Amino acid sequence: MRTRAAVAVAAGKPLEIMDVNLDGPKAGEVLVEIKATGICHTDEFTLSGADPEGLFPAILGHEGAGVVVECGPGVTGLKPGDHVIPLYTPECRECDYCLNPKTNLCQAIRTTQGAGLMPDGTSRFSTLDGDPILHYMGCSTFSNHTVLPEIALAKVREDAPFDKICYIGCGVTTGIGAVMNTAKVEIGSRCVVFGLGGIGLNVIQGLRLAGCDQIVGVDLNDSKKPMAERFGMTDFVNPSEVEGDLVPYLVDLTGGGADYTFDATGNVKVMRDALECAHKGWGESVIIGVAPAGAEISTRPFQLVTGRVWRGTAFGGARGRTDVPKIVDWYMEGKIEIDPMITHTMGLDDINKGFDLMHAGESIRAVVTY
Amino acid sequence: MRTRAAVAVAAGKPLEIMDVNLDGPKAGEVLVEIKATGICHTDEFTLSGADPEGLFPAILGHEGAGVVVECGPGVTGLKPGDHVIPLYTPECRECDYCLNPKTNLCQAIRTTQGAGLMPDGTSRFSTLDGDPILHYMGCSTFSNHTVLPEIALAKVREDAPFDKICYIGCGVTTGIGAVMNTAKVEIGSRCVVFGLGGIGLNVIQGLRLAGCDQIVGVDLNDSKKPMAERFGMTDFVNPSEVEGDLVPYLVDLTGGGADYTFDATGNVKVMRDALECAHKGWGESVIIGVAPAGAEISTRPFQLVTGRVWRGTAFGGARGRTDVPKIVDWYMEGKIEIDPMITHTMGLDDINKGFDLMHAGESIRAVVTY
Ligand SMILES: [Zn+2]
Ligand SMILES: [Zn+2]
Ligand SMILES: [Zn+2]
Ligand SMILES: [Zn+2]
Repeated sequence: MRTRAAVAVAAGKPLEIMDVNLDGPKAGEVLVEIKATGICHTDEFTLSGADPEGLFPAILGHEGAGVVVECGPGVTGLKPGDHVIPLYTPECRECDYCLNPKTNLCQAIRTTQGAGLMPDGTSRFSTLDGDPILHYMGCSTFSNHTVLPEIALAKVREDAPFDKICYIGCGVTTGIGAVMNTAKVEIGSRCVVFGLGGIGLNVIQGLRLAGCDQIVGVDLNDSKKPMAERFGMTDFVNPSEVEGDLVPYLVDLTGGGADYTFDATGNVKVMRDALECAHKGWGESVIIGVAPAGAEISTRPFQLVTGRVWRGTAFGGARGRTDVPKIVDWYMEGKIEIDPMITHTMGLDDINKGFDLMHAGESIRAVVTY
Repeated sequence: MRTRAAVAVAAGKPLEIMDVNLDGPKAGEVLVEIKATGICHTDEFTLSGADPEGLFPAILGHEGAGVVVECGPGVTGLKPGDHVIPLYTPECRECDYCLNPKTNLCQAIRTTQGAGLMPDGTSRFSTLDGDPILHYMGCSTFSNHTVLPEIALAKVREDAPFDKICYIGCGVTTGIGAVMNTAKVEIGSRCVVFGLGGIGLNVIQGLRLAGCDQIVGVDLNDSKKPMAERFGMTDFVNPSEVEGDLVPYLVDLTGGGADYTFDATGNVKVMRDALECAHKGWGESVIIGVAPAGAEISTRPFQLVTGRVWRGTAFGGARGRTDVPKIVDWYMEGKIEIDPMITHTMGLDDINKGFDLMHAGESIRAVVTY
């Protein structure tokens, strides 16, 4: 079939909107009509060329929501008409990782997904001239239709609005999951969140949901304060306004250090601060942000020997098929908010404007609707 | 009273054996006759001058066992004749740290202990000329008699031999505790231990006790192999004999990475290898070794984002008054071994020979008996 997509033809170039060919689903695969997709910093990281593993030409986008159109042979858990959210971290429920309760990093299709291909080693996308176009993070939600393995689709309720729940496919789950699955934050905790972009806001609402006593937000931009407060931030710190070092300031503010800290900046210096302002004896720091290629985190081992723990999280430690439908329920029940974070909505033809808004720091999340 | 002690008069000089004055126990304090003490790398670290927090003159030693001679006012849990092990990490059971099950780092007497003083801010030791001599790690077991706060003494059974259980005051508990309290290793785990000195051997016997399926020991010295095998090591790796990089070799050897890894070297490069050979998704690495002043650990944040966890441990995460008596029981019941690790025993007059043996790598543990 033909569908309309925004194609990343090369690193550093704007996406090109064009018709592309899409082959139907093979065994275990599902054809999905994407109804909405968020534009995420990870798409930008790849499009810019900064990601050394980025491949082109490809159809980016990994934060979508849509409807099942057709199921390939052997698909048993989905049927046409089902509402789904694509999962860049699949959940096969059979591999060593899925069977280990300590991780969500399903490895079932890792190699082909990393190569921009479906599990059989081929692409379903091609140009009208027949040249192959690669998939991206197994999702390619910047196409009105896309094909995914069944294990990479979470079935969600049908009354949830696509243009909001698409964000659960990445940012919402990453932030809330980091709190819930990775840090396992307890009621009454004191926490610090570095970076008040979309991920940071979702960490904050996760912390509110977890019943924290103190939620400190740290950002260089004062304009982030009102929205972060709306999501549950109790204290705002702008490092540029702190006299002296930031770490002792935050240790003092949290009464000896935070029980849990979260880096949502991707800056390795900030990651160090996040670790070091965690409480001696038991504070844990979770890295969420993606650092530039080759960047390294450092600290004195004394920080760990005196009881701090350094962790990271991918997709919030969530098992997508199991956890994403629950988070959609929470949104529909009003336990979490998404609407205020979707600051811009546009058609596919304007997708490059969505990237511009991100660069300018004007959007929390821009969503493309088809 | 007068007692006989080995005094560290200055950094880098041999200990001087001399009579010293010892004031009796004040409120909450206990006079202990030390019967045996191990010589630990931490004593050496301080004596050498490499520890920027080292103070002189002081009476070193923190790995002892002895008998209560006299109790100061207000001591309720000990009486003369009780057998005790001094604790450089006390357990007051009242501070915020003792009341938090996630840590063992009791802070009740931290400041004065770090300054070489008893909790009232004075020293009990002095030269025969009346010049004060500092305490060390709150223990000073290189003196035939010493004074400690009651909260820094574990009461142990009376049939246990002093010249063996003194080692439980540091190395044994540190190694076994790192497995039991910090990593919380599960039955069937695959583990890697870097450094097969005393701490490494105790980690290994802790891992055996925990029912591990694979216990890999890594050391540059082949002569460490037989003893490590005796304590439970299943695989030995000498990095100098590995072709190519050590990390992928260890990942391969452990079937994808170790569930838990332990650094018992104090080398920050090794600490990084220990983290990076932990299993993607769930592997945890525990830093036990003490790094040189100012040394830093580094890694790419990707290592954590893909599920590895970086921790450290002090005194094996053990709460001394609670846990040390249990470990003494385990020794007496044959659940753990200590005797083969006590390779040398000597009188106090020969204590500098004990340091020489350590420098030469000839001892696992040298013990001074009084
Ligand atoms: Zn994303
Ligand atoms: Zn799986
Ligand atoms: Zn020691
Ligand atoms: Zn305490």
